[in-house]
Amino acid sequence: MGKIICTGLGPGDPDLMSLRSYRAIQGAHHVAFFRKAGYKGQARTLVDGLLPEGVVEHAMEYPVTTEIHFSDPEYNRQLAAFYDRWADTLAEMARSQDVVVLCEGDPFFYGSFMHLYTRLQGRAEMEIIPGITGMTGCWTATGLPITWGDDVLTVAMATLPEDELAARAANTDALVVMKIGRNLPKLRRALETAGRLDDAWLVERGTMADQTVQKLTEITGKVPYFSIVILHGQGRRP
Amino acid sequence: MGKIICTGLGPGDPDLMSLRSYRAIQGAHHVAFFRKAGYKGQARTLVDGLLPEGVVEHAMEYPVTTEIHFSDPEYNRQLAAFYDRWADTLAEMARSQDVVVLCEGDPFFYGSFMHLYTRLQGRAEMEIIPGITGMTGCWTATGLPITWGDDVLTVAMATLPEDELAARAANTDALVVMKIGRNLPKLRRALETAGRLDDAWLVERGTMADQTVQKLTEITGKVPYFSIVILHGQGRRP
Ligand SMILES: C[S@@+](CC[C@H](N)C(=O)[O-])C[C@H]1O[C@@H](n2cnc3c(N)ncnc32)[C@H](O)[C@@H]1O
Ligand SMILES: C[S@@+](CC[C@H](N)C(=O)[O-])C[C@H]1O[C@@H](n2cnc3c(N)ncnc32)[C@H](O)[C@@H]1O
Repeated sequence: MGKIICTGLGPGDPDLMSLRSYRAIQGAHHVAFFRKAGYKGQARTLVDGLLPEGVVEHAMEYPVTTEIHFSDPEYNRQLAAFYDRWADTLAEMARSQDVVVLCEGDPFFYGSFMHLYTRLQGRAEMEIIPGITGMTGCWTATGLPITWGDDVLTVAMATLPEDELAARAANTDALVVMKIGRNLPKLRRALETAGRLDDAWLVERGTMADQTVQKLTEITGKVPYFSIVILHGQGRRP
Repeated sequence: MGKIICTGLGPGDPDLMSLRSYRAIQGAHHVAFFRKAGYKGQARTLVDGLLPEGVVEHAMEYPVTTEIHFSDPEYNRQLAAFYDRWADTLAEMARSQDVVVLCEGDPFFYGSFMHLYTRLQGRAEMEIIPGITGMTGCWTATGLPITWGDDVLTVAMATLPEDELAARAANTDALVVMKIGRNLPKLRRALETAGRLDDAWLVERGTMADQTVQKLTEITGKVPYFSIVILHGQGRRP
């Protein structure tokens, strides 16, 4: 009997993975990872040069990412079938060997593996190795602490409606917004409404080799998938 | 010229520190860490057996923790003087050598080092190594993902007023509450008011050797300093 080990890899810089994740990767015979079809995948890229020789790689390619809107039932149907199929495959593999699943950031924080995790309950032994979240890498990159004293931190997805984003931004000390992409214009308007646009930072590919850190007001074009907007708290400090 | 390296050590299990933090510690000649007077200190305990021989240790002992309420000006005065003094000492040391400052969790997330960091701007070169936050270790310990799809996550301190805690709990998907201690009865009432008490988990010393994970309703006595309350999001999932 093997088990399924999901390793959080951290925000992007391979040196930011934990000792436990590092060992799991170095000892792996089978690794599985999500990726968009036609791409190498960020999780797989992160472990370049770390995988042992002879390791068997299993690329789990999303059937759909942003081609269909997530409110469309078809999006849900295709993804559910995809997770069902891979849960079956991993459960079958784990009957005889360990499988290491590579996950960006922390697995339990908006991670894709969670959809396999629920499906695999009772069918395979599982171990989750936490990781440094992308947002932690990103606020470190800004060079400014994210929260002080009694500050409230809100984490929200840019996929939320504009008015909800504006209300959240107005009603928190520190704010982190993820899943930006095509939602950037909407997010900008929401921050403007909340009177907080000027304090917002945008971190692209935090802790990766080509990281950028800018004020959001300086951004003109599109932003990559790995982008986070950050508003720092300004709380109590002696 | 040396520099001040603040290493995030992660939630408690030494295997959860990053490769970069591990190397910084192994290469240290001087380490500094905060602690309550009379205690060994959690950050120092975490690196037991990892410090190189001959390392010089600098314990930064808080002049006050909970003996004076943080709203009392005296609390602020004593802490400010303490941070001023240690900023001077570290700046002086960094003129000739590297100093590694040990921090629990992630340094920029409600961390004490932040108070030195602001005071040391322009006076010493500094490097911050992010770490896995305590909350990430704690939600992993519950065995349940913290956030799905569009879930909003709110992080709040139990030091906030009861009505604000209740409002925050009612108005979020996932919730993390830190700095519990003597605020536990107030927090319990706030969660009750928000109708969310039954879904709350309490994790004590997450990822440490003596970790406990319980429903909050099962807790009767006091809780240790390293305690976190967690409410999981239940968002969209294919
Ligand atoms: C599906 S979530 C996965 C989050 C991941 N499990 C974590 O712990 O960070 C993907 C989003 O995370 C954010 N993200 C993760 N890592 C990032 C990085 N290094 N730089 C910028 N954004 C990042 C982006 O907003 C992206 O849209
Ligand atoms: C001053 S904050 C420091 C947070 C730290 N910088 C981090 O990134 O987690 C201290 C609070 O963190 C929480 N905490 C940190 N690590 C924890 C752990 N392993 N288990 C339970 N609570 C923890 C507790 O609520 C504690 O009151």
